[in-house]
Amino acid sequence: MACLRQYLSTPLAYALQVGSTQDRPTLEDVAAYAGVSRSTASRALNEEMYVSPRAREAVLAAARDLGYSPNQAARSLVTKRTGAVALVLSEPESKVLDDPYFLIVMRAAFRELANRGSQMLVMFVDAPDDIPRTMKFLDGGHVDGALVFAPHSGDPLPVALKLLRVPVVFGGRPGRSSSDLYTVDYDNTAGAQLAVEHLLSVGKRNIVTVCGPQDHPAAMDRLTGWRETLAEKGMPTNGRAENGDFTQTGGEAAMVKLLEREPDLDAVFAASDPMAIGALRALKAAGRRVPEDVAIVGFDDNPKLAPAADPPLTSVHQEPAEQVKQMVDMLLDLLAGQTPEERRRVLPVSLAVRESTKG
Amino acid sequence: MACLRQYLSTPLAYALQVGSTQDRPTLEDVAAYAGVSRSTASRALNEEMYVSPRAREAVLAAARDLGYSPNQAARSLVTKRTGAVALVLSEPESKVLDDPYFLIVMRAAFRELANRGSQMLVMFVDAPDDIPRTMKFLDGGHVDGALVFAPHSGDPLPVALKLLRVPVVFGGRPGRSSSDLYTVDYDNTAGAQLAVEHLLSVGKRNIVTVCGPQDHPAAMDRLTGWRETLAEKGMPTNGRAENGDFTQTGGEAAMVKLLEREPDLDAVFAASDPMAIGALRALKAAGRRVPEDVAIVGFDDNPKLAPAADPPLTSVHQEPAEQVKQMVDMLLDLLAGQTPEERRRVLPVSLAVRESTKG
Repeated sequence: MACLRQYLSTPLAYALQVGSTQDRPTLEDVAAYAGVSRSTASRALNEEMYVSPRAREAVLAAARDLGYSPNQAARSLVTKRTGAVALVLSEPESKVLDDPYFLIVMRAAFRELANRGSQMLVMFVDAPDDIPRTMKFLDGGHVDGALVFAPHSGDPLPVALKLLRVPVVFGGRPGRSSSDLYTVDYDNTAGAQLAVEHLLSVGKRNIVTVCGPQDHPAAMDRLTGWRETLAEKGMPTNGRAENGDFTQTGGEAAMVKLLEREPDLDAVFAASDPMAIGALRALKAAGRRVPEDVAIVGFDDNPKLAPAADPPLTSVHQEPAEQVKQMVDMLLDLLAGQTPEERRRVLPVSLAVRESTKG
Repeated sequence: MACLRQYLSTPLAYALQVGSTQDRPTLEDVAAYAGVSRSTASRALNEEMYVSPRAREAVLAAARDLGYSPNQAARSLVTKRTGAVALVLSEPESKVLDDPYFLIVMRAAFRELANRGSQMLVMFVDAPDDIPRTMKFLDGGHVDGALVFAPHSGDPLPVALKLLRVPVVFGGRPGRSSSDLYTVDYDNTAGAQLAVEHLLSVGKRNIVTVCGPQDHPAAMDRLTGWRETLAEKGMPTNGRAENGDFTQTGGEAAMVKLLEREPDLDAVFAASDPMAIGALRALKAAGRRVPEDVAIVGFDDNPKLAPAADPPLTSVHQEPAEQVKQMVDMLLDLLAGQTPEERRRVLPVSLAVRESTKG
C-alpha cells in the first residue's frame, strides 16, 4: 500500500482506493495517506517524540480521515521511552573540548534531536575507568538510545556497548569490532585522494603528509588515500609521512621534521585543519612561502579554521551536521523496530579550494 | 562526638572512649573514627557513589571496628539514586560552545563528578522552547541533582527549576529569583575593583570599560565595580562604558566606539578575556600601542587566552574548577539531607598582572 503514496494526493482519491479493499486501514495506509514513512507514522501515532510537528499533524489528520485506531499493545511498548538520547564522546575530555570537530558535533546533535523533540545528554568517557559507570547509566532505562563517537582502536567502549539493550549508532568507524555495528562515516580515503589529485593538478610533485594518530581509523584511511593515490602515479611516499596527532602543536612539530627530511617538498596534505594550521606556522618559520613555495591542504573544512587561516586553507569538506542527522535517522529506525537498509553509511566528501593551493 | 576526631587516632583510643559511653555507635562515631564528615560517612555506608575509594575504605573499616549497623530504612532512601548529575547550560548553544569559560566548566565538572563516582550529563537549554523537555527529563527520576548555569535575567529556567524534586545548585547568580537558590559565585564586583585600582596604581587616569550584556548579573556586578571604584576617587565614568556582549567581535566593536567618544582614553577594563582580545585588536588598528599608550585588563584569566595574547593580558583571575568543586560539595550536602551553612557562597578573585598593564 505504501507504493500508492505517489498516486494519492487527495483524501477523496485515497478513500476510493481504500474503500475498494474493504479492509480496516492499517498503519501503512495512514503513512501513505500522510505521505510519510511507516516509522514516522508510527512515531507520530504512538508518542510525542522523534517526529516533526508538521509530520505529526499530517499523520494525525490522516488517521482521523481514515478512521484508523492503533494497536494498544504496540502503543504501550513505545511509550516507555524517556525522550532522551545520549551523545557519548569517548576521547580524553581535554581533547573533546579542544577539538572544534566535537564542538560542531555537539551543536548539530543538540539541534537535530531538539527538532525531533528529544533531549540530548552529552556524556564524556575520558578513560576506561569511566566505562562501567557510563554503561550502568545507559542501561538503566534513562535513555532511548545512544549516538557514540569512539574513534580510537584501543578503546574498549564499542565492545562494552554491545551489551546494551538500547540501540547505538556510531559516528565514524570505531576502532574495534566495527563489522556488526551501525555507523555513519565519511569517505576518508576518497577525501585524501581528492586532496592529493588536486595538489598534482596544480603541478606539485613532492607531496608529504602530516597524518593523524594511527590507532584512529579515519586517520588510517586518510593516510592510505594519500599513499595509494601517489603510488598509482608512481610518486614517492617513503619517509614522507609524519604523525601530528590531530593537534595544532603536533602538526607544527611534524612539519618541522618533514622539512628536515624532505627539504625539497612542495606540498603538504594535513589530515586535519588544526594540523594544517600548525604546519603553516612551521613553514612560515622556515621561510617557505605558502602557496608559492609550498601548497597545503587540510581536512574537515572547519568553518572557524580553514577560511580564517593565512592564507585561507584548501580543505577536504565534510558535513558534521549531515553525519549527525543520518545517525539520528538510523537511531530512529532502530527505535521504531526497523532494520536500516545498511549497517554502514558512508557520506561523500568534496574539496573546498582556497588560496593555500593557488600557486 | 565529632569533635573527638582530633584526639582519637587509634582504634584502641577510640574504643576506650566509646566503651565508656555504653551506647551503640552512631553514624557520627563512625565518621569521627574514620576522620571524615558525617555526610561522607553516610554516603560511604549507604551507597557506592559520591565518595572517594579511600574515604569509603576508611568508613567501612570504622564501621567494622565499631560494630556499627546502619538504619535500613534510611539506607533504602538513598539507594534510589541514579548516580547521574546533570550539568545544565542555559545559553544559546552557539555561545556555550564558543565560550572557553563553559568548556572549562564542562571539563571541571566532568572531572569533579567522575572523581566522586558520579556520571555527568551535559544538557543544553538553547531557548525557552527547550525548557519543558529539559524539566521532564530532570524530574523523571533520571538524575540525582543538577548543576545549573543560567546567567541571563530573562531566562525562565531558574523559576521552572523550583518545581524540581531534586536539588539544584547554580553556578553564578542566576538572573532571576536568586535569593532562595543555592549558588556558588565569584566576587565580580571586587574583581572589577582590583582591575581599576591596578590601572590607577600604574598612573592611568581615563579608564573606560567594555562591559558585558546588562541582563547578566556577573556583567552588571563588574560594571558596578568599575563605576564605584572610579567614583570613589572622583574619576569620570559618564559615556565611558560600552557593551561588548562577552564576545571578541563585540569587544572590538565596543572599543571602536569608545575610541571615537573618548580619544584620550589611557586604559580599558574589559569584563571578559575574549572582549579584551577584541579590544586589543581595535586599539592596534587605531595605532594605539599597548601598554605604552593604553593599558588593558581582562576578566576570567582564561589560560588559553590571557597569557597567549599579544601583549600577554593582565586579567582578573578566577578558578572555574574551584567553583565547580564547591557546587558539587553543596549538591552532595543537599543529597545527604543536610542544609548547607549558607545558600550563597562567594569565591574570591585575584589579579594576574602581565605585560598589557606594564606602562
